[in-house]
Amino acid sequence: MTRVLVVGADAAGMSAAHQALRAAAEVGRELEVTVLDKGHHTSYSACGIPYWMAGDVDSGDDLVARTAEQHRRAGIDLRLGVEVVSSDLAARTVTTRSGEEIGYDELVVATGAPAVLPDWARGPDGTPYAGVGAVKTLDDGAMWRDRFERAAPGDRVVVVGAGYVGIEVAEAALRRGLDVTVLTRGRGLSLIEADLCGLVTDAMGRAGAKVLLGVEVSGLDVEDGRVTGVRWDGGHVPADHVVVAVGVRPATDFLAGNGLDMAPNGALRPDGHGRVADGVWAAGDCCEVRRRIDDAWVFRPLGTHANKHGRALGDSLGRGGLGRGDGLEFPGVLDTSITRFVAGGEHVEIARTGLSHEDAVAGGFDPVALVTEGTTASGYMPEAAPLTLWVMADRPTRRLLGVQVVGGEGAGKRVDTAAAVLWAGGTVDDLAWMDLAYAPPFATAWEVLQIAARRVAERL
Amino acid sequence: MTRVLVVGADAAGMSAAHQALRAAAEVGRELEVTVLDKGHHTSYSACGIPYWMAGDVDSGDDLVARTAEQHRRAGIDLRLGVEVVSSDLAARTVTTRSGEEIGYDELVVATGAPAVLPDWARGPDGTPYAGVGAVKTLDDGAMWRDRFERAAPGDRVVVVGAGYVGIEVAEAALRRGLDVTVLTRGRGLSLIEADLCGLVTDAMGRAGAKVLLGVEVSGLDVEDGRVTGVRWDGGHVPADHVVVAVGVRPATDFLAGNGLDMAPNGALRPDGHGRVADGVWAAGDCCEVRRRIDDAWVFRPLGTHANKHGRALGDSLGRGGLGRGDGLEFPGVLDTSITRFVAGGEHVEIARTGLSHEDAVAGGFDPVALVTEGTTASGYMPEAAPLTLWVMADRPTRRLLGVQVVGGEGAGKRVDTAAAVLWAGGTVDDLAWMDLAYAPPFATAWEVLQIAARRVAERL
Repeated sequence: MTRVLVVGADAAGMSAAHQALRAAAEVGRELEVTVLDKGHHTSYSACGIPYWMAGDVDSGDDLVARTAEQHRRAGIDLRLGVEVVSSDLAARTVTTRSGEEIGYDELVVATGAPAVLPDWARGPDGTPYAGVGAVKTLDDGAMWRDRFERAAPGDRVVVVGAGYVGIEVAEAALRRGLDVTVLTRGRGLSLIEADLCGLVTDAMGRAGAKVLLGVEVSGLDVEDGRVTGVRWDGGHVPADHVVVAVGVRPATDFLAGNGLDMAPNGALRPDGHGRVADGVWAAGDCCEVRRRIDDAWVFRPLGTHANKHGRALGDSLGRGGLGRGDGLEFPGVLDTSITRFVAGGEHVEIARTGLSHEDAVAGGFDPVALVTEGTTASGYMPEAAPLTLWVMADRPTRRLLGVQVVGGEGAGKRVDTAAAVLWAGGTVDDLAWMDLAYAPPFATAWEVLQIAARRVAERL
Repeated sequence: MTRVLVVGADAAGMSAAHQALRAAAEVGRELEVTVLDKGHHTSYSACGIPYWMAGDVDSGDDLVARTAEQHRRAGIDLRLGVEVVSSDLAARTVTTRSGEEIGYDELVVATGAPAVLPDWARGPDGTPYAGVGAVKTLDDGAMWRDRFERAAPGDRVVVVGAGYVGIEVAEAALRRGLDVTVLTRGRGLSLIEADLCGLVTDAMGRAGAKVLLGVEVSGLDVEDGRVTGVRWDGGHVPADHVVVAVGVRPATDFLAGNGLDMAPNGALRPDGHGRVADGVWAAGDCCEVRRRIDDAWVFRPLGTHANKHGRALGDSLGRGGLGRGDGLEFPGVLDTSITRFVAGGEHVEIARTGLSHEDAVAGGFDPVALVTEGTTASGYMPEAAPLTLWVMADRPTRRLLGVQVVGGEGAGKRVDTAAAVLWAGGTVDDLAWMDLAYAPPFATAWEVLQIAARRVAERL
């Protein structure tokens, strides 16, 4: 009987736990799987929280893919409210906040990446000021859902950060009738090239949000422990609520002192089977992942990777670990992602796959990139919405390197087609000439992805 | 000065003409390009006609991508209303209906494929009975648009054929408030596997259309030259209008007697550069195309192929023909296509790429196919619509062979991702593990395409 201890009960950890049991059963091996989580929820969709805040989703329960009870019925010993604070990998033990020492044969680190709350967001006792918080856990979601429901129309919400969460929270707040200001220290949106950012920020502006670029928040105005404004060098906005969406950081402090190789932010770097060291495995948001195009380690804490990597880890571990049998392998990522901004009559889909221009230069490519405008459907159809594509290829090899899109309904998921080309290491010529689906409600006769690819192909 | 004669002024012919001029200019070659067409319209979207009939598109002019005047301004000698009736390829001449003989150095056949009107649809003089017609040319479209606008609510429209055009015309007629019956001799829809057909015919039924499968029309009831009903062996339905959508046939009769290799239906089989024989080129709906997966010649008269093949042809011809310089090459098709049925509160998208099960068996593969159900967005989102996928792979090689989808808004264009995998010759494992875009409004955390691919992968 092999004792598997999983720390973290969300996407990566629970995928790993279930797949390990399935794979072990297939090879006739016995596993005892214990999962610890410091919180009280399992397998929930953090990505769905902004839509719960907006009112699209009725209940936090809807965001839970599988309950604790469902996991336990599958034979997993799930212990919630148990925080692991330290570990001794040589002795194969972890220690919990309550002082319990737990031994294991195989450790799976799936602790995720909690939201970063900068010092300026917190009072002297270390907790956030009233009216201030992140959007990461189900408890965060419940708090914001409640605040947004109680808020009076026109209450001022300041969102700090313009990544996925920042944009999605701005959408939610606008749809609740609140006054929205988004502050970001960047000169644009971190997700996409500067060439495309204006399309998003303009739409946010038309929908009533103020978007302030190049703003590094330095502090809050606080009265009676409650936030009343946000300050930066040379500026200030009043605020009833401050949503902090400045990023996340891997929860790997409990591994300190064991000599594991980690990225500067504390992320682990497991191989495709999830293995970090002898007896130590990891997957999900507490890890970096390999980007296939340039073979770089990147920190992309996304649920879709966590599910896939967790499954590969569980399969490899369940079959007996490497060397004792094959297992599924997580083959890395392409840096694909998507979001949207839908409020005030605006509908903008924002998606990317592959390298940015900066990544490409750093990776030693000779990138050629062009922006191309088109429509999501034939121009004469009522469905036709504008769509702007950024396509980049490598000059000497003609290899496709990256595609980004900003556009109306039906624009975003077009990056999947480009992702499939990147996956195969294909060229812009492949993308330009392949046989994609055309009918007037769905595309132009020359699909805009293909026009964009053709234009880049002609410049190489 | 090389005299290029293009017969046919729609997508393939005009793409070829323009690209030939551009390519010739690049290599410093002089071309004189003449284009003949028996009709009076150029470069129009036949695919858009059903949406014009439905009232989505205001004017037939909206369907014209480029007018005759625009083509002439680009330096093309365009002659409309000129029908070519015979040819002497050895002498390099064609003869028109009016008896004019026109010489050329290079002939481009882009005559398309007119709709088939069976004998039962036509009176003794060979023209269709009043109330009967096909949906192919802009003139057809104008006629049907006018008929549908004048029709009284509840007027009976019988559509013969359940391919793309049949489904789209049924949608148009229902949205005009007409009574719709679709008759097809097949046991399902020709576009997709039998497993998926019920999803479409059920939706058509809920929207008010009657769909009769396995019905081979044998004749019409006609009073005073006007249709009143449609008959088949053992059945009959009354009809005020009969839309004949039973297919198309290449317009290559004028090439008879020249010994060209043709498919049984008269389609030409040009190579990727468009060349059929010395001095003879062809592209578009009058041709078969190569399907890459099984290297079979298939007849797929679609505008998107016509545009691409026309462009490759023009480029190759303009640069001087093969052997005298490279030109773009049309790399074949995947059998991708898409349509939709949207009426009476139903929204069904229907799309396919790759082989059918029958194709796969005929091609010597060992196919394994499964149907998988999922949703277009995370289940808790209001956007989530059902989506059913059929995925097929080859057992020994794990190669993806075909994907079909029937589902709600956002379902159809998912086949493009599968098409990109097919293009690269990828496996179901590639599709299952690649990095596709996820956010709750756009997909489930495990994208349904990937769940479906995974399920097939597990059966191989």
